[in-house]
Amino acid sequence: MKKAVVLLSGGLDSTVTLAVALKRGYMVLALTFDYGQRHRREVESANKVARHYGVEHKVLKIDLTQIGGSALTDPNIKVPTGKSSDRIRKSKEIPATYVPARNTILLSYALAWAEVSDADAIFIGANHIDYSGYPDCRPGYFRAYEKMANLATKRAAEGRPVRILQPIISLDKKEIVRLGARLKAPLHLTSSCYKGGKKACGRCDSCVLRLAGFREAGMEDPVEYESR
Amino acid sequence: MKKAVVLLSGGLDSTVTLAVALKRGYMVLALTFDYGQRHRREVESANKVARHYGVEHKVLKIDLTQIGGSALTDPNIKVPTGKSSDRIRKSKEIPATYVPARNTILLSYALAWAEVSDADAIFIGANHIDYSGYPDCRPGYFRAYEKMANLATKRAAEGRPVRILQPIISLDKKEIVRLGARLKAPLHLTSSCYKGGKKACGRCDSCVLRLAGFREAGMEDPVEYESR
Repeated sequence: MKKAVVLLSGGLDSTVTLAVALKRGYMVLALTFDYGQRHRREVESANKVARHYGVEHKVLKIDLTQIGGSALTDPNIKVPTGKSSDRIRKSKEIPATYVPARNTILLSYALAWAEVSDADAIFIGANHIDYSGYPDCRPGYFRAYEKMANLATKRAAEGRPVRILQPIISLDKKEIVRLGARLKAPLHLTSSCYKGGKKACGRCDSCVLRLAGFREAGMEDPVEYESR
Repeated sequence: MKKAVVLLSGGLDSTVTLAVALKRGYMVLALTFDYGQRHRREVESANKVARHYGVEHKVLKIDLTQIGGSALTDPNIKVPTGKSSDRIRKSKEIPATYVPARNTILLSYALAWAEVSDADAIFIGANHIDYSGYPDCRPGYFRAYEKMANLATKRAAEGRPVRILQPIISLDKKEIVRLGARLKAPLHLTSSCYKGGKKACGRCDSCVLRLAGFREAGMEDPVEYESR
């Protein structure tokens, strides 16, 4: 059976990505990071999603607050709120929620685990439509990562490469919501809010995009919001 | 002034690499990982080397024992001993001390720190002569890493790339020792033994190569050994 490490943050995108990996017939090893992000509620959501599917799940504690440089890892930088989904989508700026080299760090641990567990693929729920500002969410970045990964490991040196797969990279939020619904992914267990309160805030960039996605898909978001 | 993050393990190779970075006129930010390796004494050595040079020094605690798969991070895998320096050098096998994706993980943190501190370069003391078996110590791997890194970050997206430099990659141990001596690097503060005891064991692959390097350079290794 093919095996894949799936990066599972506990948000909407990574949960749909996990559902895609299962649909494609992979045995899934879910990997979650507790990296000092403000939205740690995501980690609880990841636990619930992994239990829902009954897949192996590893939570790695890593500390990106020692590096800082992002609204998600440094309490002195404000999480941006108050923009419309259109304004977020059209902005070419790299947002304050960009975490320096985050995907590079997370994929590197995934690569290590893929090597140890002899997995053929790594799935990541990156997307370059809604957050076109994040440099490490673009297709060219992942192609370069895959090339590097296949020079980095013992597995690769022995002729067994690993694929870096981003099945939702070119979908917009509405399409991701619809795909999740079609695959019966447990969207009610996911958590996307950057603020990480008991209920989603409804105002941060992530909430705004998620709500717009559900609205445009003609569906009700099953999670609770403070305001929407 | 040019700025560089230098990966400083506290061993001979990374200490000489730091000396090269200073010689080339970089302001150095030294970065050390406490990653659950057996030879933690290296971390103390790194502290001493950084203090010797008076450079900024960050020690990041990361836990690679959760991933395992190496004699250096899994207590159930034995550190190999008893081979001659010639046998180690000529072996084409990937040794049990290979840590899955280690350089990829360490460079990724270095990349994040380089971005936050606006550094132009990352120096790594990798070497493909003595450990030709480590896939992530080969020049092609570093070229691919640099390409990926320059698609990964905000800095790069803004047209300011980062260089990944490996100044001792093609030197043998004798040449590294001589270079260190010429640059007056504090070789007496370094620690290379995989076992991490109070004195170096003199028998693990790392000790055997280091001792051979000093011998061939016609110099006395200033650190203490149990046996040599």
